[in-house]
Amino acid sequence: MDMKAAILEKPLSIDVHQIERPVPQADEALIKVACIGVCGSDLHYYEHGKIGRYVVEKPIILGHELSGEVIEVGENVSGIKPGDRVAVEPGITCGTCDYCKAGRYNLCPDVQFLATPPVDGAWAEYVSIRSDFLHKIPDSMSDEEAALIEPFSVGFHAMKRGKVGPGDRVLIQGLGPIGLLAIQAAKLFGASEIYASDVIDFRLEAAEKLGINGTIHPLKGDSAAQLQALTGGRGVNKLIETSGNEKAVSDAIHLVNRGGTIVYVGLPVQSAIPMDVAALVDAELDIYGVFRYVNTYPAAIQALAHSDTDIRGIITDRFALDDIKEAVEKARLAKETTLKVMIYPDGMK
Amino acid sequence: MDMKAAILEKPLSIDVHQIERPVPQADEALIKVACIGVCGSDLHYYEHGKIGRYVVEKPIILGHELSGEVIEVGENVSGIKPGDRVAVEPGITCGTCDYCKAGRYNLCPDVQFLATPPVDGAWAEYVSIRSDFLHKIPDSMSDEEAALIEPFSVGFHAMKRGKVGPGDRVLIQGLGPIGLLAIQAAKLFGASEIYASDVIDFRLEAAEKLGINGTIHPLKGDSAAQLQALTGGRGVNKLIETSGNEKAVSDAIHLVNRGGTIVYVGLPVQSAIPMDVAALVDAELDIYGVFRYVNTYPAAIQALAHSDTDIRGIITDRFALDDIKEAVEKARLAKETTLKVMIYPDGMK
Amino acid sequence: MDMKAAILEKPLSIDVHQIERPVPQADEALIKVACIGVCGSDLHYYEHGKIGRYVVEKPIILGHELSGEVIEVGENVSGIKPGDRVAVEPGITCGTCDYCKAGRYNLCPDVQFLATPPVDGAWAEYVSIRSDFLHKIPDSMSDEEAALIEPFSVGFHAMKRGKVGPGDRVLIQGLGPIGLLAIQAAKLFGASEIYASDVIDFRLEAAEKLGINGTIHPLKGDSAAQLQALTGGRGVNKLIETSGNEKAVSDAIHLVNRGGTIVYVGLPVQSAIPMDVAALVDAELDIYGVFRYVNTYPAAIQALAHSDTDIRGIITDRFALDDIKEAVEKARLAKETTLKVMIYPDGMK
Amino acid sequence: MDMKAAILEKPLSIDVHQIERPVPQADEALIKVACIGVCGSDLHYYEHGKIGRYVVEKPIILGHELSGEVIEVGENVSGIKPGDRVAVEPGITCGTCDYCKAGRYNLCPDVQFLATPPVDGAWAEYVSIRSDFLHKIPDSMSDEEAALIEPFSVGFHAMKRGKVGPGDRVLIQGLGPIGLLAIQAAKLFGASEIYASDVIDFRLEAAEKLGINGTIHPLKGDSAAQLQALTGGRGVNKLIETSGNEKAVSDAIHLVNRGGTIVYVGLPVQSAIPMDVAALVDAELDIYGVFRYVNTYPAAIQALAHSDTDIRGIITDRFALDDIKEAVEKARLAKETTLKVMIYPDGMK
Repeated sequence: MDMKAAILEKPLSIDVHQIERPVPQADEALIKVACIGVCGSDLHYYEHGKIGRYVVEKPIILGHELSGEVIEVGENVSGIKPGDRVAVEPGITCGTCDYCKAGRYNLCPDVQFLATPPVDGAWAEYVSIRSDFLHKIPDSMSDEEAALIEPFSVGFHAMKRGKVGPGDRVLIQGLGPIGLLAIQAAKLFGASEIYASDVIDFRLEAAEKLGINGTIHPLKGDSAAQLQALTGGRGVNKLIETSGNEKAVSDAIHLVNRGGTIVYVGLPVQSAIPMDVAALVDAELDIYGVFRYVNTYPAAIQALAHSDTDIRGIITDRFALDDIKEAVEKARLAKETTLKVMIYPDGMK
Repeated sequence: MDMKAAILEKPLSIDVHQIERPVPQADEALIKVACIGVCGSDLHYYEHGKIGRYVVEKPIILGHELSGEVIEVGENVSGIKPGDRVAVEPGITCGTCDYCKAGRYNLCPDVQFLATPPVDGAWAEYVSIRSDFLHKIPDSMSDEEAALIEPFSVGFHAMKRGKVGPGDRVLIQGLGPIGLLAIQAAKLFGASEIYASDVIDFRLEAAEKLGINGTIHPLKGDSAAQLQALTGGRGVNKLIETSGNEKAVSDAIHLVNRGGTIVYVGLPVQSAIPMDVAALVDAELDIYGVFRYVNTYPAAIQALAHSDTDIRGIITDRFALDDIKEAVEKARLAKETTLKVMIYPDGMK
Repeated sequence: MDMKAAILEKPLSIDVHQIERPVPQADEALIKVACIGVCGSDLHYYEHGKIGRYVVEKPIILGHELSGEVIEVGENVSGIKPGDRVAVEPGITCGTCDYCKAGRYNLCPDVQFLATPPVDGAWAEYVSIRSDFLHKIPDSMSDEEAALIEPFSVGFHAMKRGKVGPGDRVLIQGLGPIGLLAIQAAKLFGASEIYASDVIDFRLEAAEKLGINGTIHPLKGDSAAQLQALTGGRGVNKLIETSGNEKAVSDAIHLVNRGGTIVYVGLPVQSAIPMDVAALVDAELDIYGVFRYVNTYPAAIQALAHSDTDIRGIITDRFALDDIKEAVEKARLAKETTLKVMIYPDGMK
Repeated sequence: MDMKAAILEKPLSIDVHQIERPVPQADEALIKVACIGVCGSDLHYYEHGKIGRYVVEKPIILGHELSGEVIEVGENVSGIKPGDRVAVEPGITCGTCDYCKAGRYNLCPDVQFLATPPVDGAWAEYVSIRSDFLHKIPDSMSDEEAALIEPFSVGFHAMKRGKVGPGDRVLIQGLGPIGLLAIQAAKLFGASEIYASDVIDFRLEAAEKLGINGTIHPLKGDSAAQLQALTGGRGVNKLIETSGNEKAVSDAIHLVNRGGTIVYVGLPVQSAIPMDVAALVDAELDIYGVFRYVNTYPAAIQALAHSDTDIRGIITDRFALDDIKEAVEKARLAKETTLKVMIYPDGMK
């Protein structure tokens, strides 16, 4: 049987083709994709054909933020069945290496991550996934919310790494989809006060709509001074950096209180950023890197299912899969008005 | 100068007297008590004249859940000043022992805890307290909320000990003031699903009003069966036991999932409770005792100041200090209708 | 091809038979067993035919503490090859459930544990094991040491659960093989002072030979008094209970200091042990169950390979597989002189 | 009464003077200094008159690594008495701020740290110290070992921050006194393999004498290549950086394994060091700053008292207080042959 899939032939060249529909292996399930987001990494592959050591060397299907419906299951699959609605965790890990066994499967060296070359993603009608990475969602959860659990998981994992909770004052740097979802994750973890910074007014406004305690615009005055003014001189004890911006990464050390915690999420393009390590030592900071996420899906689904939090506010645009070229161009170029673009393989309903 | 204070002469004999107003030492501040709660321990001293090794051997002033206004400060006090409104943390610790230095000052062997014999409490117009145990509250926080931070701190500390957060399903056993405040603490910490159990309908209704996911009545069927039914067979991974009831304490081991966590808060009267330690080992549980609280006030004030949580719902009765006898009798006898009784030294305004 | 294996037909009836040699599956390796210990659980199945919910319903091969040499590997195996010497981790887990993914695979509900009915063990010449549970050992490590990593892992895991390290004073209750190996694990983790208790002089002497700070004989005076005398009144802040003895389990709460930690390892036969939960709450203890071990093999091999610790001191008897009946009878009956019995499938060299 | 003290008048100008002997306050004890080390910070003040924001503005007594005997105690002192031998913890903290209460008193903003301007140190015959910072030592512990607990505490704290234990492979960068003592701390914490790097052969030899697994000389080839060769390609999962050297600080991110931990102890002089934060994120590292130490003295004393570890190997030179000028000049200039210089106020016995 055939299906539609968006294939990136080479940078900037993407089109929808009819290809063979995947057949699930014994431990896999075939998923009919309900909706799937456009991520910054998708755009990067689309535009540059590579991210660091990962290079697109043959045509590839992109996309890894998805939800869908189980159509068919392999013979060894239990726990899910045709008709179940699922959020798809897009990194399939080995389950047998030291990292997997220690509960840090996000560091598995043999991970097969959707839309990371040479592994195909899911901008397509169907995708086949190992069943233990499919997470059933309740009826009350929308397809879009389920698809967004992928980027939301990054924020969720960042909060766990940074041990964010009640009593914490948190600054979130960078207000793209990851930063905005991190704000919602911080609220879910009980952070008492949340501040946010970005250089694009549209994004600062999006953050304000989430009901935070104040925003910082680093180009409109000294960030530290703005933060001190907002907090009445108390500062923040936790900082989540999602922008990857060189100056933001560097400044973080001076923006967080003594004894505080920085979580680095955003990936800088520079390989050498000037950092005040002496201040890091003197302030006895804790610093944590965040690489994707681990063990977040069941918890995040459960948390969202039982809260008022609606993470769909970041969706600014919706396209049918047939209009994939238009969708990625919009996401790529309209930074001032676009946050998350959602693709519907089955067309817009 | 004089002041009014309620003095317990012997069990069941309490009256308001004029006594000398305390004078703050160099590191203390004099507080005019705004309002102050009646705690289960106060009632126990009132009725039995002792709790375990603590015996009322001479007339004592009870009460330790209070807020008030700073009237006067000693010469070494900085950071607070007359006119400041404060929540009072009622255990004054040495600051120099190993427990204090390690951040567990609640275990300080030299603590002076208000209303624990022979230390006087604060059912009085004024009380003098070492200034580092006075916590400024924002204008937006009511006197009652500030007074209730004391019992709320127990729940807050229990959540920290139990590492409660998003993704957790939590059962809270016992729905007196501590249990009900623990529900609100669990919500603040982001618990995804909260269940609660008690044997008094009035208390179960109070829990339901807080918007939880289900209640268990241990006398109306097997608790485990009720819990499995409520959770769709998923059970809970965290359990907070506040009742101190022998059966509840014992059953906890079988009510929490494998690999789960139990936090024991309620103090049983029995010194030997039958426990299935083999099940504890087989399920590899984590169990934490909770003794009062530590480092909760600044965080709890900050958390409550920035949330919709209103912890005053547990106050069922208010009395003037002059009516102290009536107040404690009501609190002692009317278990079916009374949760928290609040005393106003300055009369009911 | 055939091999010898000891088969338990029914309680107390065990004999060596020729059976078919296992053939490794694609992800397995065939191991020629070098040596394999007799564990308390083996003896329990031998004597009673069951442990709790696990019942021997058909003839079974017992034994799960082993090392050996890789003879042959399945087609999907990488990382190990014929000729490698390995320690065998005897619980094969699913790798896909929530417990496995969270790094607690010891709680995997689908674990296949050697010599736990209906899964066969390895009192045999050969056994086939999934390759990710085979851990290469260095040339410097003896077969016996490698086999003993299994019981040593229990102590190792107990130290991790109990966060034992420099500055800790530790009491280890119960001095069978697990307790004695726990002493050596405690030393490896840097515990500053180690005390041990048992009621059998032979075992206390074995502990003393390991160079600890003092021993307690619970039948020769009050344990608490003995401990206070030994520690100069300072007590211990960590307690590892391996005896499973009812009184020892119960007393632990009163033997550890305020704010201290108890790790329960030994499995009591009673399902209701009287426990002073009020004291647990008042002392704000941390209590951890230990079920087998998780992620210990690579660390324990590395730790033992680079230390002076020799864990073979607990081996008191060695038998050929042909003498299995004599071996298990010795282990079962001679508690006063036997600690660990080691079986050699290939005969005594 | 008078005493001798070494007074730094201005950079490079130090002499012994007769000054008034301190009189202990109510909560202090007068200590007769047994011996006291020369620290890198002492040398920095001696040479430059300042370290960062701390400036020597009036004559000062340096020195803060000391042990001694209690001569006299203030009226409120309990727990120690004249004749007791003590290790002196040289940072006196407030005990009342949020950091102190949370168990991180090393971050107390009001700390009075010996020999940090304007607070006098203890290169003198006597010093008066608040009694809760005096730690009794056993008879078996030498004065020099007790004095060295101060720099040893830095390594001890680094191991706690980095959660070092059995199974860890650790690289320690920088082999001055702090780095060498960190090696001994790592051993005490059970690290399985220890590697060390420095550019001075004399220091590498000192490390080798401690019995480690291998050394790296960063100027004699690529550090990463040397480390991979030493570890058989397995690398290290923990790295303790004590050199403060710009390149060493920067390289650390690439020397530690994925998912690993870096502890920064050494204070770089540069305020902007090029760091590969993208690699930190991709490898999901944990990074911890270490500022002095906290709660290490009782644990370190207990750990050293009960181990074979002898930390006095770093002492290369001993001087009488009268020869202070010669002592600091030796320490300052003879980096190739001097590690720790010890001063004896009472002359060399």
